[in-house]
Amino acid sequence: MLNVAIVGASGYTGLELIRLLDRHPEVRISCVTSEQSAGKRISDIFPTLRGRSDLLLEPLDSTAVNAKADLVFTALPHQAAMAVVPDFLAAGKKVVDLSADYRLHDADVYAEWYQPHINAELLPEAIYGLPELRRDKIRTARLVANPGCYPTSVILGLKPLLERRLVDLNTIIADSKSGTSGAGRSAKVDSLYCEVNESFKAYGVGSVHRHTPEIEQELSELAGQSVALTFTPHLLPMDRGILSTLYAMPLRNITAEELAELYADTYNDEPFVRALPKGQFPSTAFVRGSNFCDIGVTLDKHTNRIVVVTAIDNLVKGASGQAIQNMNLICDFPETMGLEGLAIFP
Amino acid sequence: MLNVAIVGASGYTGLELIRLLDRHPEVRISCVTSEQSAGKRISDIFPTLRGRSDLLLEPLDSTAVNAKADLVFTALPHQAAMAVVPDFLAAGKKVVDLSADYRLHDADVYAEWYQPHINAELLPEAIYGLPELRRDKIRTARLVANPGCYPTSVILGLKPLLERRLVDLNTIIADSKSGTSGAGRSAKVDSLYCEVNESFKAYGVGSVHRHTPEIEQELSELAGQSVALTFTPHLLPMDRGILSTLYAMPLRNITAEELAELYADTYNDEPFVRALPKGQFPSTAFVRGSNFCDIGVTLDKHTNRIVVVTAIDNLVKGASGQAIQNMNLICDFPETMGLEGLAIFP
Amino acid sequence: MLNVAIVGASGYTGLELIRLLDRHPEVRISCVTSEQSAGKRISDIFPTLRGRSDLLLEPLDSTAVNAKADLVFTALPHQAAMAVVPDFLAAGKKVVDLSADYRLHDADVYAEWYQPHINAELLPEAIYGLPELRRDKIRTARLVANPGCYPTSVILGLKPLLERRLVDLNTIIADSKSGTSGAGRSAKVDSLYCEVNESFKAYGVGSVHRHTPEIEQELSELAGQSVALTFTPHLLPMDRGILSTLYAMPLRNITAEELAELYADTYNDEPFVRALPKGQFPSTAFVRGSNFCDIGVTLDKHTNRIVVVTAIDNLVKGASGQAIQNMNLICDFPETMGLEGLAIFP
Amino acid sequence: MLNVAIVGASGYTGLELIRLLDRHPEVRISCVTSEQSAGKRISDIFPTLRGRSDLLLEPLDSTAVNAKADLVFTALPHQAAMAVVPDFLAAGKKVVDLSADYRLHDADVYAEWYQPHINAELLPEAIYGLPELRRDKIRTARLVANPGCYPTSVILGLKPLLERRLVDLNTIIADSKSGTSGAGRSAKVDSLYCEVNESFKAYGVGSVHRHTPEIEQELSELAGQSVALTFTPHLLPMDRGILSTLYAMPLRNITAEELAELYADTYNDEPFVRALPKGQFPSTAFVRGSNFCDIGVTLDKHTNRIVVVTAIDNLVKGASGQAIQNMNLICDFPETMGLEGLAIFP
Repeated sequence: MLNVAIVGASGYTGLELIRLLDRHPEVRISCVTSEQSAGKRISDIFPTLRGRSDLLLEPLDSTAVNAKADLVFTALPHQAAMAVVPDFLAAGKKVVDLSADYRLHDADVYAEWYQPHINAELLPEAIYGLPELRRDKIRTARLVANPGCYPTSVILGLKPLLERRLVDLNTIIADSKSGTSGAGRSAKVDSLYCEVNESFKAYGVGSVHRHTPEIEQELSELAGQSVALTFTPHLLPMDRGILSTLYAMPLRNITAEELAELYADTYNDEPFVRALPKGQFPSTAFVRGSNFCDIGVTLDKHTNRIVVVTAIDNLVKGASGQAIQNMNLICDFPETMGLEGLAIFP
Repeated sequence: MLNVAIVGASGYTGLELIRLLDRHPEVRISCVTSEQSAGKRISDIFPTLRGRSDLLLEPLDSTAVNAKADLVFTALPHQAAMAVVPDFLAAGKKVVDLSADYRLHDADVYAEWYQPHINAELLPEAIYGLPELRRDKIRTARLVANPGCYPTSVILGLKPLLERRLVDLNTIIADSKSGTSGAGRSAKVDSLYCEVNESFKAYGVGSVHRHTPEIEQELSELAGQSVALTFTPHLLPMDRGILSTLYAMPLRNITAEELAELYADTYNDEPFVRALPKGQFPSTAFVRGSNFCDIGVTLDKHTNRIVVVTAIDNLVKGASGQAIQNMNLICDFPETMGLEGLAIFP
Repeated sequence: MLNVAIVGASGYTGLELIRLLDRHPEVRISCVTSEQSAGKRISDIFPTLRGRSDLLLEPLDSTAVNAKADLVFTALPHQAAMAVVPDFLAAGKKVVDLSADYRLHDADVYAEWYQPHINAELLPEAIYGLPELRRDKIRTARLVANPGCYPTSVILGLKPLLERRLVDLNTIIADSKSGTSGAGRSAKVDSLYCEVNESFKAYGVGSVHRHTPEIEQELSELAGQSVALTFTPHLLPMDRGILSTLYAMPLRNITAEELAELYADTYNDEPFVRALPKGQFPSTAFVRGSNFCDIGVTLDKHTNRIVVVTAIDNLVKGASGQAIQNMNLICDFPETMGLEGLAIFP
Repeated sequence: MLNVAIVGASGYTGLELIRLLDRHPEVRISCVTSEQSAGKRISDIFPTLRGRSDLLLEPLDSTAVNAKADLVFTALPHQAAMAVVPDFLAAGKKVVDLSADYRLHDADVYAEWYQPHINAELLPEAIYGLPELRRDKIRTARLVANPGCYPTSVILGLKPLLERRLVDLNTIIADSKSGTSGAGRSAKVDSLYCEVNESFKAYGVGSVHRHTPEIEQELSELAGQSVALTFTPHLLPMDRGILSTLYAMPLRNITAEELAELYADTYNDEPFVRALPKGQFPSTAFVRGSNFCDIGVTLDKHTNRIVVVTAIDNLVKGASGQAIQNMNLICDFPETMGLEGLAIFP
């Protein structure tokens, strides 16, 4: 039985880790922390857990965490994560970090988009934890940087095109739309029910959202050369789900049939990516609560442009589910263990 | 006092015409028709009208309509509209047609996307009723083809760029998202609450939605040459609103400031288009219930791509409000009459 | 032209006052205040107002308000309202107070449910502003205490029964459900989108909600004797609307037909109350954005219990619309002026 | 391994059975039927199942079902269920019927509320499948009538009061609110997104909803005498969840503490009922997707009235989850097997 700690357990990704790990036969949650809610039971914060979990939220103390856990999920805001991750590593723990702190290889890029990094020496060994890209490296990692929600939806959608060098790298656009749980659980006027409901808007227009460099880092690695894209996130009036609509111009003639085949081939053996048959496109509703990424692709014959549509649950494949997938790889559990749950619809 | 008929009054655009015309000081609704609900009071169908309108829904009989109305709004499905519009014109009535039947100039294109046209001889005189493009022609028209909801949101967003020849015409993408009222009021599983709620999806992917040729017709006229675009509509879990995110590559160096100025200049005198200051972008929530089209624009410096975001209420500027704006022009009423209502938020 | 001030204009009721007054031909908004947003334009806070209102939000200074306005709407939290209302009255202004500060006649009751009153001497002259109960007193009032949203929906629903002494006063229950805009615009975790969406709960169970004494005060006056009721408020996952389901046992045999007639008779001349025909019941959707209160009534023959259902828009008849109705009465404008707008659906 | 058939698998309760049974280690779904969608794969109807279930939907043929299954879930409309249930029983199958056809003991009552019963001889042996009421009888049943969603939420809420004879039976009111999935998946205007969204209404006012006799049958059995209640269902703008607010007058003095204790005692050993501590009340959000029924209770000291609030997921404890709980009892599996999943929030 693996003992895991969830550091920062009072947010939505923390709760989703608990919900999913509850079904994992090889894991026991031995420690949950929260600065704001220390001293309360986790079930007082999240009444879904009533009668099912009596864990006491503790203030974050690395030594205490190290004494209780073999592996640590850090579900903290960026900057807060890098303040404690080295402590866990130093004690020989494995870490799956859900923050942005170890996703970017380049400390200067990190500093430009966030703030100066305080333990940049760890960046070279941190593995960007998208199993569909580098499953083997994750298996042997001490520190996995769990991908952002938008990046997961964009990178999986473009991987087949980029690794085959099929598209003009100057023509890539990601028009992404996210449910509101991505904004977290902190009290802000912009996240109030009456501000979000019956409302739809773009934000970070002009590729100024912090997920841009993360996406480009991974696309560049896939393409074998530097890639810049236009990325526009939008806020959806719903709880969960990201749908990304991706555009790129092909470098050679290609048909919708070939594209569908390419995606099917690429993802055939992937347990959590479903490449849809030609003519079918995903909906966030059909992945809600599950670790699936559904992908549809076609050619707009009219303009000879490739259009890819991907859907994930931002809290599962876009965060906590993927973190557990990474944990499974690190710990040599079956990759799908604990993640078999079907989507919940309606 | 102008007597108007609403032919096809039991759908959402019909009701929205009634809601808006109720505040119009120069108009009296003298006739409402509905095949399905003939014999019922309009307030039985739409209880918002209780105590305010006792109009009896009649089956559609052109002669009866002609006897009662000076101007006819046809809020019928395509194909049904062209079956009766000639009758109204023959009787000397003005017609604002909210269907797609007279929007396309070319009968062959119409036949390709819909079905054969049965009175194509009217197409040359029908005016595509986007006041911001051809206000003067609308004033003298007998037959105005009221624009589609998506086309309104896309064309207004691209007009400044196209008429100044600022963008590469091969790079235009419209990623549009619509509230569910755009799907109308007919009983379909796909439009059920539980199918749409907490759900987001693309449809008509690959520019196969019927609004594509309509958008291209108007963009081509603005650009002075043939334009093809990639157009992807999406379905939002909310009642009202369309947000279109538009992408194009500039032909020359241009800054975000210049773009904001260009849009401000273009729309400065337009009563219903609000070009937002640099750095601001629209939300559907802030136009809900109003006839406004809000537009934000920027340059993604990163990829040197122009990004435009537009927001309308699909039932107002995207349908019934614009139809009344067209009626005002035809009848020489002040253009904003009856359309002064502010958006309702939250 | 009447100059009005809106003190506390940056909340939802403040915005709704602006939206409605914008259509009022006899009123000019001359002053808007906000502590949090002083120095900003009202359109920066509420982009619905872009291009339509340039009013600058001022910090609250009674002298400045008195210099600009003839009538003041105070849309402040309780306690904050009573700190300034006397200043406006002293300057000879009329005040419509949307807070709870002057609704309760008895200062001890106020102290029990809120905090000690600091100008209890004003309570005797403050008129509880439900026009359907005391239109004439409102006409001559200096200070109108605008009713709470829940109380409006409950009192109007029970008035016909109580003033005719038709029900056992020990059997009254109000099961009320409110949209989330009733919780206001302050940043609280409980009001976040993801906490409210796809969620329904009761709160203040056991008649401990502060609207209880307000409801009972008015019911007691209607009944001519002391009334206690069980009142359970609930939070709905939607923006606007209150639906109250009311229960009471009749003191004599009565039929559903008689009840429907009684309600029709009672409200026949009321411009904003629609008593529905026997067998029809209201929906919040059909009053959204309007000043109507829709009421349906029946007898549960099975248990011989009267069931009444009422629907209002909590921001209109439950707050800002009713405040304007009160202003119209005070200022001898037609009672419906500026409030003629139909509900917006969908 | 138990082979089960789901007869009527293309509705929401059918899908929910599949979602839940997918995690059940002792069950294999061997047959799914649908009249409308026969010949399609279940994953074509419900894309959540892509890559996880290839079952072909068959037209309903009792012989074919009997050949494949040991136990049959009938998820058909009433009347359709009783047309086939006898066939399954005759073949020695166990049946859990999710329709209303075998819930009422009295064929005359059934005829009054539905239509004449065509195999009333089965009514005496059918067990009303609420495990918290008659677990032992369910264990040995051939035919279990799975309770309605509203009745489950009402009966569980009132059981402790009735079996202890604590309340005046003439004072019971159930004010219930249901998410829209309860209306099923058939195409009706009333269930359209734009009709339900941002809307709240009562229906079946006056205890004329068909769940009334079902509730009263069970309450009467609990009370040991005939019980009539006032039952008002309402439609919530959300997918899943029923919240029932229940009112009754106590026959003797009782405190909120005693009530909380009574509920805790009653449900202490129940795996799926959580009696909340004094002062806490449930939300539908915290049971969504789970088989829990959460219950809070208090005394309104003000009016000396007991108020109980219950929350369930109408598709789980209100339908498919409870059906599986019944199957577990019938088949002597652990009662919670396959139903351990935590609620999904947000």
